[in-house]
Amino acid sequence: MENKYVYSFHEGKKEMKSLLGGKGANLAEMTNIGLPVPSGFTITTAACIRYYDENKILWNELLDEIHDQLMGLEKRIGKSFSDENNPLLVSVRSGSVFSMPGMMDTILNLGLNDISVKGLANSTGNERFAYDSYRRFIQMFSDVAMGIPKVRFESLLEEMKENKGIIEDTDLNAEDLKVLVEKYKEVYLNELNEEFPQDPIKQLELSIKAVFDSWNNPRAKVYRRLHNISDNLGTAVNVQSMVFGNMGDTSGTGVAFTRNPATGENHLFGEYLINAQGEDVVAGIRTPDEISHLKDIMPEVYDEFVKITHTLENHYKDMQDIEFTIENGKLYILQTRNGKRTAQAGIRVAVDLVHEGLINKEEAIMRVEPNQLNQLLHPTFAESTLKEAIIIAKGLAASPGATSGKIYFHADDVVEAKARGERAILVRQETSPEDIEGMVAAEGILTARGGMTSHAAVVARGMGKCCVAGCSDIRVSEETKIMRTKDQTFNEGDFISLDGSTGIVYKGDIEKVQPTLGGSFGEFMEWVDEVRVMGVRANADNPKDAAQALEFGAEGIGLCRTEHMFFEETRVMSVRKMILATTLEERKSALDELLPVQRQDFYELYEAMEGKPVTVRLLDPPLHEFLPVKDEDIKELAEAMNVSFDDLKDRVEGLAEFNPMLGHRGCRLAVTYPEIYRMQVRAIIEAAIDIKEKGHEDIYPEIMIPLIGHINELKYVKDEVLKEINLVFEERNNTVKYMIGTMLEVPRAAITADEIATEAEFFSFGTNDLTQMGFGFSRDDAGKFLNEYVEKGIFEKDPFQEIDRAGVGKLMEIAIEYGRKTNPNLKLGICGEHGGEPNSVEFCHQIGLHYVSCSPFRIPIAKLAAAQAEVNYPRS
Amino acid sequence: MENKYVYSFHEGKKEMKSLLGGKGANLAEMTNIGLPVPSGFTITTAACIRYYDENKILWNELLDEIHDQLMGLEKRIGKSFSDENNPLLVSVRSGSVFSMPGMMDTILNLGLNDISVKGLANSTGNERFAYDSYRRFIQMFSDVAMGIPKVRFESLLEEMKENKGIIEDTDLNAEDLKVLVEKYKEVYLNELNEEFPQDPIKQLELSIKAVFDSWNNPRAKVYRRLHNISDNLGTAVNVQSMVFGNMGDTSGTGVAFTRNPATGENHLFGEYLINAQGEDVVAGIRTPDEISHLKDIMPEVYDEFVKITHTLENHYKDMQDIEFTIENGKLYILQTRNGKRTAQAGIRVAVDLVHEGLINKEEAIMRVEPNQLNQLLHPTFAESTLKEAIIIAKGLAASPGATSGKIYFHADDVVEAKARGERAILVRQETSPEDIEGMVAAEGILTARGGMTSHAAVVARGMGKCCVAGCSDIRVSEETKIMRTKDQTFNEGDFISLDGSTGIVYKGDIEKVQPTLGGSFGEFMEWVDEVRVMGVRANADNPKDAAQALEFGAEGIGLCRTEHMFFEETRVMSVRKMILATTLEERKSALDELLPVQRQDFYELYEAMEGKPVTVRLLDPPLHEFLPVKDEDIKELAEAMNVSFDDLKDRVEGLAEFNPMLGHRGCRLAVTYPEIYRMQVRAIIEAAIDIKEKGHEDIYPEIMIPLIGHINELKYVKDEVLKEINLVFEERNNTVKYMIGTMLEVPRAAITADEIATEAEFFSFGTNDLTQMGFGFSRDDAGKFLNEYVEKGIFEKDPFQEIDRAGVGKLMEIAIEYGRKTNPNLKLGICGEHGGEPNSVEFCHQIGLHYVSCSPFRIPIAKLAAAQAEVNYPRS
Repeated sequence: MENKYVYSFHEGKKEMKSLLGGKGANLAEMTNIGLPVPSGFTITTAACIRYYDENKILWNELLDEIHDQLMGLEKRIGKSFSDENNPLLVSVRSGSVFSMPGMMDTILNLGLNDISVKGLANSTGNERFAYDSYRRFIQMFSDVAMGIPKVRFESLLEEMKENKGIIEDTDLNAEDLKVLVEKYKEVYLNELNEEFPQDPIKQLELSIKAVFDSWNNPRAKVYRRLHNISDNLGTAVNVQSMVFGNMGDTSGTGVAFTRNPATGENHLFGEYLINAQGEDVVAGIRTPDEISHLKDIMPEVYDEFVKITHTLENHYKDMQDIEFTIENGKLYILQTRNGKRTAQAGIRVAVDLVHEGLINKEEAIMRVEPNQLNQLLHPTFAESTLKEAIIIAKGLAASPGATSGKIYFHADDVVEAKARGERAILVRQETSPEDIEGMVAAEGILTARGGMTSHAAVVARGMGKCCVAGCSDIRVSEETKIMRTKDQTFNEGDFISLDGSTGIVYKGDIEKVQPTLGGSFGEFMEWVDEVRVMGVRANADNPKDAAQALEFGAEGIGLCRTEHMFFEETRVMSVRKMILATTLEERKSALDELLPVQRQDFYELYEAMEGKPVTVRLLDPPLHEFLPVKDEDIKELAEAMNVSFDDLKDRVEGLAEFNPMLGHRGCRLAVTYPEIYRMQVRAIIEAAIDIKEKGHEDIYPEIMIPLIGHINELKYVKDEVLKEINLVFEERNNTVKYMIGTMLEVPRAAITADEIATEAEFFSFGTNDLTQMGFGFSRDDAGKFLNEYVEKGIFEKDPFQEIDRAGVGKLMEIAIEYGRKTNPNLKLGICGEHGGEPNSVEFCHQIGLHYVSCSPFRIPIAKLAAAQAEVNYPRS
Repeated sequence: MENKYVYSFHEGKKEMKSLLGGKGANLAEMTNIGLPVPSGFTITTAACIRYYDENKILWNELLDEIHDQLMGLEKRIGKSFSDENNPLLVSVRSGSVFSMPGMMDTILNLGLNDISVKGLANSTGNERFAYDSYRRFIQMFSDVAMGIPKVRFESLLEEMKENKGIIEDTDLNAEDLKVLVEKYKEVYLNELNEEFPQDPIKQLELSIKAVFDSWNNPRAKVYRRLHNISDNLGTAVNVQSMVFGNMGDTSGTGVAFTRNPATGENHLFGEYLINAQGEDVVAGIRTPDEISHLKDIMPEVYDEFVKITHTLENHYKDMQDIEFTIENGKLYILQTRNGKRTAQAGIRVAVDLVHEGLINKEEAIMRVEPNQLNQLLHPTFAESTLKEAIIIAKGLAASPGATSGKIYFHADDVVEAKARGERAILVRQETSPEDIEGMVAAEGILTARGGMTSHAAVVARGMGKCCVAGCSDIRVSEETKIMRTKDQTFNEGDFISLDGSTGIVYKGDIEKVQPTLGGSFGEFMEWVDEVRVMGVRANADNPKDAAQALEFGAEGIGLCRTEHMFFEETRVMSVRKMILATTLEERKSALDELLPVQRQDFYELYEAMEGKPVTVRLLDPPLHEFLPVKDEDIKELAEAMNVSFDDLKDRVEGLAEFNPMLGHRGCRLAVTYPEIYRMQVRAIIEAAIDIKEKGHEDIYPEIMIPLIGHINELKYVKDEVLKEINLVFEERNNTVKYMIGTMLEVPRAAITADEIATEAEFFSFGTNDLTQMGFGFSRDDAGKFLNEYVEKGIFEKDPFQEIDRAGVGKLMEIAIEYGRKTNPNLKLGICGEHGGEPNSVEFCHQIGLHYVSCSPFRIPIAKLAAAQAEVNYPRS
């Protein structure tokens, strides 16, 4: 077959994708399982490659093959080019191996000429449609194949409409269109100095050349370059006969799902229109009828269709979304694909298909898109009302869910509004730890700045609260309590609605649909747990979050951020005293105030976790995050500390940093003030001993030291920590098991992981910071340009959302390889925000992590992603 | 020799360092080249290791060996333990393979007991000295070997002084000390329930045990842990007979250099004291005499000494610094080492030694510490006046030199002061680009914040101007124009002096010494250039710097920071308009204003460089660095731009970033505003064509795209840049050669260098940012804690000063390895501040860079370091 460059759909199959392209292989597959697909053939990618080798000439042997296939096609379907009654018309479409949506060219209704246009009028009984199609074909062919600007034709159309005083194209009648066709042909003649080709064979050759040429148009080249698709693959060309659903009352068109895509129930679901084309269904001018009614009008066609739906479900082993056309009583299948469905339906269908014996549990697990589970865990806006909703801005989909409320610009105001019984949305430039109570009280959070791992986003996800972050379409003035979009102004108290799953902000209050956990969910998640080998823990900082996490199936806590415990109103005063102390004694006395509180926090957390592992990260953020900003707060603190306002303000300002993310934080604090970590470790260990002594299940704390970049930092801090632990053991005359490890989040730590692993029992990858430092992107500032990066195709994904495998992922792999060299028993996890993102979870599985840790609300998602990863890349 | 654990000095040599320790090997070496070194022996590190294996017991065979050596020693020097007239006294000192200064124990005057103390009194004719030595020995032995707290003895001494109503120890007479000795022995008896050991053998055994034990004292263990010295090496013990220079008029002590350490002139230089001990010379109570006068008093000793100085110079092939003692007319050499010297002397001596045939050129090159050349290039404070100077603070030695001036807190004020003819020092929290003109006008710069690569430091080094940065000892209030140290307040106009080579800040105006480039310097640098294989370029942003760089021997420009061109008063208005433009048209019109100015800049730079390569970095810093801060400046700009103040202020604030180092800068700007780089590239290429057309030597611009982290960024920006270059080529109908490469400064770029090298012709390592992001340290904030890191031994060096080889260096190695895989011709350089730091230059040589680039004033230093690296690690 070396010299075969053209395949009829009968000759291909889905495995021939590299030769026939994606579309061609799929058309062949459907043809071969006996579906009535409109006939056609595919000119291969190999032909395209040779076309370029031949200096863009269609060589004779290829033309011969095409003509042979054309004759076969005419014979098969009983239509022929330029027929006055029932002419053959074809579409010519590109189809490469990798999908390049919209990058290359398509020509429809090829074959129309002065003769066949009459045939089309006759066969459809619609002269206006026929001439309108001819007009459009001339324009499309001239533009795509011959390079004549569209505007040459469109201006004539506009001129005619103006002369006739009409506005819509549809108001032109058949006679108008006939005139227009003649004018269009004149344009062609004037532009190219030759007549518009009446010979369909010539039309076809020129169109095939045009599709081949479009492989190398500038936008396709840029697309391939950015997506690393080779320029040498070439594109296939699909030539397929057109069918028409508007040939009279025995024709029609429709769409159907083999099961209910909203609920998953097993019954045919769809609609059709008699004497119509696909675009009529979409345009919504006529109201389609329910698919079951087709049975009454065309019982044989209906029965055939139902049979086909079963064939398709059995062949593709999934619910199908099928487009069909009936031309003069004959059914054609134009397309079938796995049907889009709600999460609820997805789970129901997958579970049913297992019970029906069509697929096994592993296959069922692969059928549900992990992120779709968000629909089951959070409210969504009602589809119906969304159509009329007014979009005012779009930001990052930072934390899923849908919510509405009145806008407030200060955390205090939100708290007060809530106390008044209002639903409130907190709107800020960016949130800071001081806003925590307002965030708790708010229905949702909207920020103008900050990325997917900004403070607002991280905290909101942890709370399972809807959040749109980094919304650069809005300008927020917290001072004047005004939010501006490009053309509107919103004041305090105005209603808006947030969709945290899409990032869209709507005007006003929109109706919401509450999630329902269907009966199949439990069974499905059991299978997920059976298949999955990687552990799934939660990021949880308090007993409430821990309980929530357990409810969602968490197997432990992978990240307890102790600083969140510091922000509570009742404690922050002690924290501030500790930070602003000028002597060791002052600092120790402030820490003594905090010790019992932290111990109690840990006790309650351990109690909630019932013996499951708990990883506690010691204090991480820069100290000035805890400090008061407003003069009045500084004044209050100065009084409490018995120092002058000026002096305290000086100290507060002295702690400000140019780049706090790269500043005095994490283990660097512990090098300067070892007593802070010693207090925290004492609380961790004392609480664990209390738990043991009170007869609860033993807790095995995993103490995590953040921001280690150098082995000597870890040695130094670990020495301090161990001293304190041993002191507690002596004092209490009791011991507990514990581990000491590090958050692996600094690029240098990854590069020197062999050294660091000699002192660490575990690594927990902090991929937020690893991404920040690996790329050099501030998570709080990158929102400004990352959208543009994704839009321009420079990044496929925001690396704060999905682990950048080639860079940040590579650093993780290096860290694992090096770390295991010196410590083969190293325990490995991830506690960055990526731990709940399906593609990242897959990557974590592939590189051998023992667990991922994520926000409680993402646990089912992470579990499903982990199970899918095991199916795709089994560890054992 | 397997069972030999004790070596007399005659039996060792310098190559036996791992067995004898550093000190023992050196004592042996001196002994063996015939120097009169006080006799002694070394107990090996192997003995120490076995001592621990034997559960800390000195086994019999070892004791036998020690006794044999002791008898040999007594015989050799004609003294014996417990002798009533001329007793043997010894010192017992630790000496490990790697120097661990002050970490282990030393005991002096061992052998003193009730009998030998009389012998010492007799032989020195100084009873007071003998009993004072005995008293001290009891205390030292009891403390070091037996663990009796020193305070037990010191309190008795204090008591006696109080009773006698005297203040100084020296006021006690011999009788007092005899009483004290008895009391000390009682303490020993009471504490340990046994008599103070009178047997010197017993004293020695206990002391050897004590030194062995001190190997594992906590501070030694911590020191080894931090410096990665194995715990298993053990320490040697050196037992050496004591000699006394205070035995009468035929005794004495002194120090001499074989050449003049200030000028390098070849004559003996030193001083001595008759009837004195080493500490008398140091204490400065008596004034020593010039060494040449010794000839008159003890001609034979003097001749012997002169002969020895020649022996030593010939043996060590370098100028020696020699300590000697004369005991009863006999000369002893206590120590010799390569003498410390000024840079001027260092070069003179090295060049002379070559001419004398003692060493070759490569050896001469190795003799001068590259950083010492700073002395030749910048003024220093006069040694004599420094003694009385008052130190008020210490910061980072950010840019070398010494200067004095009146302090001013605002750039404007400095400019005005200079106009009045004053010498002014700019004192700021931290400088910003707005301060440039003040920095130019200032004698020196002092900042309270910021590290070695902060704005102040980098700019000052570029200008060769003295700067002390990150001086956390001072608090600066720019508003009230006050600088505070712990206990003093300085107002505007007060004089201070800065030493940029040490980081010390002095009160008042201090006399300075201007540098002199001696006659040997040129010859020396010629040899450096002969040996060196790595290129040395300069970081220079304008023709003046370029000329300075060429004068110092630069071979090209490795980094021209185009943004520095943007800051000039006359241009910044256009830059601001460009940044704050809201439409593409506005931005382009502002860029059109900048184009001719930039083109002229490049033209002049190229002209100055006379055909040498010039690497131009496209715009790098975050745009808001260029923006006005003060309301009045914003107002002025608003008027010029014809927009409202409020609106403009909004825009300015909107550009602020939380972490500007990780923000919207470098190539990220070019993704958002491609027209900026297009203007810059147009200026670069047009200027190069102008140069060519005017008949100057062709310039081959190397266009450097900063902050690339991902291959797609480079592809995108390079496409834009190439389009503009080709446009210029077409317009001018002429071409020039050029390269396009990237600054390699983002960790992710290093990790994915294989991808990036497919589009880059060169990598220039930006190790400032690579260090910032690799460690996660903000260069502007890390000053706060990095000092502490170095003090606590966590880091040996500030990684912003010297490349961190294990981490940042490893990233560079990875980048080179990966990059060469896909682009074997990749050109490699460095343009970070490390490019002028000798150890970093060595590393750059080792990993194969083609060139380093540094501030003009560091070029001789970098060249010398590169030459030394080639000697140590020849590339060919």
